[in-house]
Amino acid sequence: MRDVCVIGLGLIGGSVLRAAAAAGRRVWGATTAEADAEAAVVEGFDASTDVAAALRTAAERDALVVLAVPLTAIEEVLRTVGECAPSCLLTDVTSVKTGVLTAARAFAPNARFVGGHPMAGTAESGWRAGGATLFDGAAWVVCVEDDTDLAAWAEVARLALDVGAHVVPLTASTHDEAVARISHLPHLLAAVLAAVGADGGPVAMALAAGSYTDGTRVAATRPELVRAMTEGNREALLPVLDEALGRLGAMRGSLASTGGLAVSINSGHEGARALAEARQATPSGVRVTLSAPDARDGLRALGERGGRITSLTADTAIGEVR
Amino acid sequence: MRDVCVIGLGLIGGSVLRAAAAAGRRVWGATTAEADAEAAVVEGFDASTDVAAALRTAAERDALVVLAVPLTAIEEVLRTVGECAPSCLLTDVTSVKTGVLTAARAFAPNARFVGGHPMAGTAESGWRAGGATLFDGAAWVVCVEDDTDLAAWAEVARLALDVGAHVVPLTASTHDEAVARISHLPHLLAAVLAAVGADGGPVAMALAAGSYTDGTRVAATRPELVRAMTEGNREALLPVLDEALGRLGAMRGSLASTGGLAVSINSGHEGARALAEARQATPSGVRVTLSAPDARDGLRALGERGGRITSLTADTAIGEVR
Repeated sequence: MRDVCVIGLGLIGGSVLRAAAAAGRRVWGATTAEADAEAAVVEGFDASTDVAAALRTAAERDALVVLAVPLTAIEEVLRTVGECAPSCLLTDVTSVKTGVLTAARAFAPNARFVGGHPMAGTAESGWRAGGATLFDGAAWVVCVEDDTDLAAWAEVARLALDVGAHVVPLTASTHDEAVARISHLPHLLAAVLAAVGADGGPVAMALAAGSYTDGTRVAATRPELVRAMTEGNREALLPVLDEALGRLGAMRGSLASTGGLAVSINSGHEGARALAEARQATPSGVRVTLSAPDARDGLRALGERGGRITSLTADTAIGEVR
Repeated sequence: MRDVCVIGLGLIGGSVLRAAAAAGRRVWGATTAEADAEAAVVEGFDASTDVAAALRTAAERDALVVLAVPLTAIEEVLRTVGECAPSCLLTDVTSVKTGVLTAARAFAPNARFVGGHPMAGTAESGWRAGGATLFDGAAWVVCVEDDTDLAAWAEVARLALDVGAHVVPLTASTHDEAVARISHLPHLLAAVLAAVGADGGPVAMALAAGSYTDGTRVAATRPELVRAMTEGNREALLPVLDEALGRLGAMRGSLASTGGLAVSINSGHEGARALAEARQATPSGVRVTLSAPDARDGLRALGERGGRITSLTADTAIGEVR
């Protein structure tokens, strides 16, 4: 099993370090956040605040380097990768994929880069918020572009499977469009709801119950993390935000004119049912041969149909589609 | 303890019937939904589908009548109250208070009516979804208008306390404005999110994680219930919906122009903190003497400061404000 070097030891990076170690891999990490490095060392991990040294070790050992720093720090870390481990196997775990792909091509052009994004997290952050089981059963997007090296792709996919996730192969842009809908828009709507609710003062806070606490939960996330993901996905997020504005505006219009909200509320109910059905459907098996000439298309088609890969042999990705 | 007659035996009405019985009251109920009436009888309750007969019994016994029918059926039931129990002690549990107050004055003008609204519920509905503990620790708004009979008010408040809730005294219009923010807007935003998410197809559904499932949970509520509460609170909901549209539009504008979302996201984060602080604050005790000339003002002031009443003696409401 390939060694793993994790840069950034917050919620996600710290969880990758622990889960990869639990899967039997040799692991080490580095972070500029002293508190996280110290906490990792206290738990017996090889961790430091010397990012360059950790990357040089990765280059020596031909390790898989996982960038788990906030999106806003990606460029700087990629420059260090370009200097200290220029041709390493490289992935990341940030929530926007096209921007990171562009930055990797610019600042670490010789790295064997494959973008990734585990769909897991909590409103908490930092090493202490993480754990070895954070990724159990989670979707982990591992990007497939037209020029993706499938050997490198399989290395990243194998790490995701090793830590308990299932793999969803998608292009960076398909990923960004989907997460704008199901991750970035939820954060913006939660922020709107939390602000409008708080404007109602103590009465509103005293009456707030389940629909409000559920709807505002992610508004408690650290603002800089929410800003990084939403601002970093601007291009994909703008049309999705327009769609949401259009739907909310249509509600406003029909409430003010006819007073009827049937169409809007039924659409939302159908949307909720679509999620429930996607989760309850019986899966059927799918295999993609990685050495086949159209393997990239096969992987992406699987991901685009809502499928996932659950295991990987030397030349075959084994998965299911619901 | 006063007898309780519950009309409507769904989630809320069925829970009131069970909880009031558990508190030692004589209870009976009626509903036009045969399945709910049968289920209540199977569990040993005095329940039927003859609403008029149940109300006539209430008139004979001078019981407190609780209307727990959907908002869209309130007028019809109020007419029956006007015929069969014209001067009864009367309350309701629907989520909009000004409309019901107007209807009660029109169709049961001699009833001693005091509006109520327990802030409890689930996405499920019907007798089987309820239970005797549904109201434990929940806020139960009991309305205080300028002409409210405080003896009748205390009877309704005592029922709310008996079933485990705490009482929030507010005018109908203050209630409606607050629930537009913390209950009706959350349902509309959940519907928008569920529709925009589902528009992303199978990929979006496969990647949906916590922020999406939390944000769309109440979109699974029966559409007719969501329509009844939102359409029924049109006057209070429209300006709240405009505030949400304004905030979402401002996000769209700043993302498109400067690309920065700091102001919007920080406002949401502060809103989330306002809720957490309201819940963690140390309460201080408050008492309102019900026979005092300004008792109505005292009760409403308590509610408007986010306070609640936790017990009631013959002439004193004892509560706390955070």
